[in-house]
Amino acid sequence: MPVETLEAPVQSSAERSIDRLLRPRSVAIVGASEKPGALGASVLANLERNGFAGEIHLINPKRPEIAGRACLPGIEALPWGVDAAVLAIPRAGVVDAVRQLAARGVGSAVIFSAGFAEGGEAGLAEQRNIARIAAEAGMLIEGPNCLGMVNHYDGVPLTFVETAVTPPVGEAAGIGIVSQSGAMAAVLGTTIASRGLGLTFSVSTGNEAGSGVEDYVEYLAGDAGTRVIAMIVEQFRQPRRFLAAARAAAAAGKTIVLLHPGKSSAARESAATHTGAMAGDYAVMRLLVAQAGVVVAETLEELSDIAEIVVRSPALPSGGTAVLGESGAFKALMLDLAEELALPLPALTDACSPVLRAALPEFVGVSNPLDLTAQGLVDPDLYARTLTALFGDDRIGTIIIGIIQTDPVTIGIKVPPILRAMQERTGDKPVIFAGLDEGAPIPAEHVEALRSLGIPYFPASERALRAVTRLIRAQAASPQEATPSGAAALRLPEAGGVIPEHAAKSLLAPLGFAFPPSHLATSPAEARSLAERLGFPVVLKAQSSALSHKSDAGGVLLNLGDAAAVEAGWHRMVAEVAGHLPDVALDGILVEKMGERGAELIVGARSDPDWGPVILVGFGGVQAEILKDVRLIAPGMSRSAILAEIGQLKAAALLHGWRGSPALDLDALAALVERLGAVMLANPRIREIDLNPVILYPREQGAVALDALMLVDPN
Amino acid sequence: MPVETLEAPVQSSAERSIDRLLRPRSVAIVGASEKPGALGASVLANLERNGFAGEIHLINPKRPEIAGRACLPGIEALPWGVDAAVLAIPRAGVVDAVRQLAARGVGSAVIFSAGFAEGGEAGLAEQRNIARIAAEAGMLIEGPNCLGMVNHYDGVPLTFVETAVTPPVGEAAGIGIVSQSGAMAAVLGTTIASRGLGLTFSVSTGNEAGSGVEDYVEYLAGDAGTRVIAMIVEQFRQPRRFLAAARAAAAAGKTIVLLHPGKSSAARESAATHTGAMAGDYAVMRLLVAQAGVVVAETLEELSDIAEIVVRSPALPSGGTAVLGESGAFKALMLDLAEELALPLPALTDACSPVLRAALPEFVGVSNPLDLTAQGLVDPDLYARTLTALFGDDRIGTIIIGIIQTDPVTIGIKVPPILRAMQERTGDKPVIFAGLDEGAPIPAEHVEALRSLGIPYFPASERALRAVTRLIRAQAASPQEATPSGAAALRLPEAGGVIPEHAAKSLLAPLGFAFPPSHLATSPAEARSLAERLGFPVVLKAQSSALSHKSDAGGVLLNLGDAAAVEAGWHRMVAEVAGHLPDVALDGILVEKMGERGAELIVGARSDPDWGPVILVGFGGVQAEILKDVRLIAPGMSRSAILAEIGQLKAAALLHGWRGSPALDLDALAALVERLGAVMLANPRIREIDLNPVILYPREQGAVALDALMLVDPN
Repeated sequence: MPVETLEAPVQSSAERSIDRLLRPRSVAIVGASEKPGALGASVLANLERNGFAGEIHLINPKRPEIAGRACLPGIEALPWGVDAAVLAIPRAGVVDAVRQLAARGVGSAVIFSAGFAEGGEAGLAEQRNIARIAAEAGMLIEGPNCLGMVNHYDGVPLTFVETAVTPPVGEAAGIGIVSQSGAMAAVLGTTIASRGLGLTFSVSTGNEAGSGVEDYVEYLAGDAGTRVIAMIVEQFRQPRRFLAAARAAAAAGKTIVLLHPGKSSAARESAATHTGAMAGDYAVMRLLVAQAGVVVAETLEELSDIAEIVVRSPALPSGGTAVLGESGAFKALMLDLAEELALPLPALTDACSPVLRAALPEFVGVSNPLDLTAQGLVDPDLYARTLTALFGDDRIGTIIIGIIQTDPVTIGIKVPPILRAMQERTGDKPVIFAGLDEGAPIPAEHVEALRSLGIPYFPASERALRAVTRLIRAQAASPQEATPSGAAALRLPEAGGVIPEHAAKSLLAPLGFAFPPSHLATSPAEARSLAERLGFPVVLKAQSSALSHKSDAGGVLLNLGDAAAVEAGWHRMVAEVAGHLPDVALDGILVEKMGERGAELIVGARSDPDWGPVILVGFGGVQAEILKDVRLIAPGMSRSAILAEIGQLKAAALLHGWRGSPALDLDALAALVERLGAVMLANPRIREIDLNPVILYPREQGAVALDALMLVDPN
Repeated sequence: MPVETLEAPVQSSAERSIDRLLRPRSVAIVGASEKPGALGASVLANLERNGFAGEIHLINPKRPEIAGRACLPGIEALPWGVDAAVLAIPRAGVVDAVRQLAARGVGSAVIFSAGFAEGGEAGLAEQRNIARIAAEAGMLIEGPNCLGMVNHYDGVPLTFVETAVTPPVGEAAGIGIVSQSGAMAAVLGTTIASRGLGLTFSVSTGNEAGSGVEDYVEYLAGDAGTRVIAMIVEQFRQPRRFLAAARAAAAAGKTIVLLHPGKSSAARESAATHTGAMAGDYAVMRLLVAQAGVVVAETLEELSDIAEIVVRSPALPSGGTAVLGESGAFKALMLDLAEELALPLPALTDACSPVLRAALPEFVGVSNPLDLTAQGLVDPDLYARTLTALFGDDRIGTIIIGIIQTDPVTIGIKVPPILRAMQERTGDKPVIFAGLDEGAPIPAEHVEALRSLGIPYFPASERALRAVTRLIRAQAASPQEATPSGAAALRLPEAGGVIPEHAAKSLLAPLGFAFPPSHLATSPAEARSLAERLGFPVVLKAQSSALSHKSDAGGVLLNLGDAAAVEAGWHRMVAEVAGHLPDVALDGILVEKMGERGAELIVGARSDPDWGPVILVGFGGVQAEILKDVRLIAPGMSRSAILAEIGQLKAAALLHGWRGSPALDLDALAALVERLGAVMLANPRIREIDLNPVILYPREQGAVALDALMLVDPN
């Protein structure tokens, strides 16, 4: 169920029209030119250099021919139904050209010009106009404000950036680039090609007037040659559609690696300025894309590092990591980094690793990272024996070899035994080669030999550890979509709005949420008798959907010890609330048994308008508000994943019993979170649920929400 | 005042003996060989290849000559007073050889063999033996368990690692490497050479039997050609001496860049295993080396990144940083990274930057990072105009240019205007070139042209930002040593030991420390009358140097409201304490006015046995114990630096007034910290002072320590 935001593409994603853009049999260049450096000239040169085999139609009213090819005087002279048109013309002529292309049944149009949605109101109006014209004609728009696309399979670069196509070698070994920024698509393409990796398609979507990153991800999810979809996105315009496409890509065996600026508010503002669109909640995006199986990179370097490992390795990194090295200081550096990254390095010891022990000289102790010392120079077979032992060790799923390369002679001693071990191995554990001495003159043949056996070559070990960590962590995600359960469906008021505490508790209690015993009273006498039935002390809380912050309005009285206090409290409260909000009509006053003391947490859920529901858990008060010590959890996460997230709270130690206080009932907390997720999934109209505070008791004694507030959309 | 730890070198650092090792005029190779790959053969080959001009003496009892050079049958046949001997022999013969070398007046000996202190008790004993023999003879020992040293000036590699010397070009443009790990010294040397940088000396100190990193830093601080001292250290054996050497290096205009594994406990254990020495407190080390002007790197990459900027830039990075880029997405990535690093990017706007505004085309808004778009391809002079505008902008101290390199043609358009701007500039602001597309085929001539004008070339922009951040932050340190002030000297008990609260407060109060009014009572009657004089409520606290944890022993009673409660409390307390500690003799019971409520902090000082005094400040309770939300502060830091550190507390927002609570008296807190630092500096016998809790009151209302405890070394 894609949610169309204001700037979402008007045009629907038809595989057919994307096909006409990405695999065109005929191309028109509007604004063809022979002036070197002109956009039109560069596009033509790109097509010719890469041997585009289809028809090329040039349009330039001022010239009868360009570079030996006949020119048409205008778009109206095009034959009917050209697949793709490239608009290499100034902004001013774009809307007219789009209209004319639509009239000639053109399948798709690439618009390079900038100054549309990102250029102010007038540009935004023009962009909407373009989108509308194209949608009515069933024509796909790429851009505006983009660098076009490159089809590396067939040598079709519809871009003015000088391009040499680099198609993938081997099956399903290609990287597809989908980037809003054309510059970043080009940057990434250069880096990927320099690593000897092949590309399938590279698409920059720019302002996304008529097609967005979601369309191209959907397309690449079905492209056999694409193994990795490398993305640079500043704002997803159709988040839920992207999540579905990401799950489809995962199901099809593709890995999406995403670089998404916007962690800082400054970056979000900047993105709004130059793409003309507001960015959504970054933390929610991070959580939900990861949950959909997307690997998130932090830097450009990391993006291509991760992509290379996925493409080259026979299997994805998983399980425990072993690090081989040749120096004690390197070992210590890797231990520091592994701790910082929380990358598990299973403990290997002499006692528990007989095969590895037998492979090593006496003075080398078994450990992880393993310090082979400089012994490999004297006994190069050591590398092979060590690797073979690790291939057979079930505790190890991924191997990183940190090698001191020095010079061609030294590296020439070390690489062959590594290659031999790889050739003779059984299994498919990823092995990554990481040079320690960046810039060492290592002959290209060694790098190529490693790569040909599926070993990515990294110039720095830190980068290898970081990339491996991201990939291992991504394995933990379960990309299938959480399905709503009918059992959690609630009867919500048709009109929506704030549901006050007593009503929210009544709705949620039958689903297993624990609240203190309470009853709604509508008179002081009723309150007295309810309090006597509940047992003292009790709490009084004024109830009205107009009273979201009841304590601020004098609508909460705690610790009332007897019936007289309840009655006096009633009158005081009614007067106080009336003083604050003269027009409020109370539903009544909730009489509730005062809860036992325990650890105060906050648990909440909200449905992000773009991304859908997320759950938030944290300690209350200073922890949440000053230290932002909260975790986001996706509905549908497993109980163990929820527990793992809760364990990531900075103050998690408080949950496990601290200074003699008992360990708390984490299972109850996780169950509460799970239940809340089910409620959000089953009731899409719920915008927010706040359980604040939730009191968490010692193990097996449960978690009780003292308050509950819901905000619901109208039906 | 160097503190000699157990494994500290026995030999003192004599410039003269280091000179004989690092600039030898005569070298002996014990264990000379002509077998390719043998250590002795490799050392000789290195010396010959690099044209060592001094005498070479080969020692091998089995051969009359090697490679055309005469061999001596034994060490005893050496002429008197050879400068340096290299021991290319197995471990078993090392001690004897050292004794013989000492007997021939040899100035220094390089020991490659491993298996000494890091190999167990026997090895440790042998290593001590070596150190003693050498010290008695005034002979310098490098190693054991090292890779030797290389003098790049004179082409003297006393190492078996195949070495091509790469001396510095230009004045004070060299990097000296001082590393405990020989492997890491070699790795760093390879990387530095690959960046076109020159080396002065590279020394690996290994187990440091007779000379440590401190000796070589002292030496390099006086070496005119060395601009940067690049260090990899797992454990400083003489921390205070290193701090003094670091300050001397800073005073001499050298920058020390340090990579120090050991952030994780696993790394510290690993270092202990392979160097045979225990690592000290990592956080204290980080604080104090930074305070001494040392720039700390986190990775090998960063170490050479920082070193390159220092060597190439005309001035060190400082002030605000401007980032130039060519893409909006890149701008957003840089904003994210700058926020993560807390790197200040001064806000540049159209309104406040008229010169920059005039340099840019209309559609490019002034901002920082600046997004020049792809306009530079059409108007390359844009790069020059922008740089020139930034050179003249006082808000900017450092400039990073993030460039999309693409291919030789594209980069060939962009580099020349950058070079032109650099040639024409006034001032010496560092400019760093960072390529966005790692691996782009940029011709070497462009990299060299940039470097020749003092612009370091970085393959990735993230690395440039990280390195610049570290250097800018390091500028804030004040490398001069804090001097003790006599005014803070205390009359401490000669016997040392625990100083109980009442005595500690009496010692500290005259220096300006604020405590609640209190008096020591020695009888219930005295307690009553003291309490009446102080005013109720009061606190009773049992006093004895044997009672460090008085509350655990029933030795604290709070909130006593009248004289009767005081008298009853006295008797209860005496009984309780006696129940816990039957033998304790109380000095009396402290009667103290109960303090007003306020924010609870902990302030403490301790003198690290290796590194000297540090102050610790944090919030009490959960914040300190679970969240480790504490800051370390070096005595002698300025008031503003102390305030900046306190501002780094994760919960610092609590100090500034939160949810309507008033802002707290940070000046009083900073003054307290400063005062505590002065006490520690003036009284080296104090091992620990704990003020826990310190109650911090609203602005201008001060900070009061409720408790005080001191631990003092005997005189």
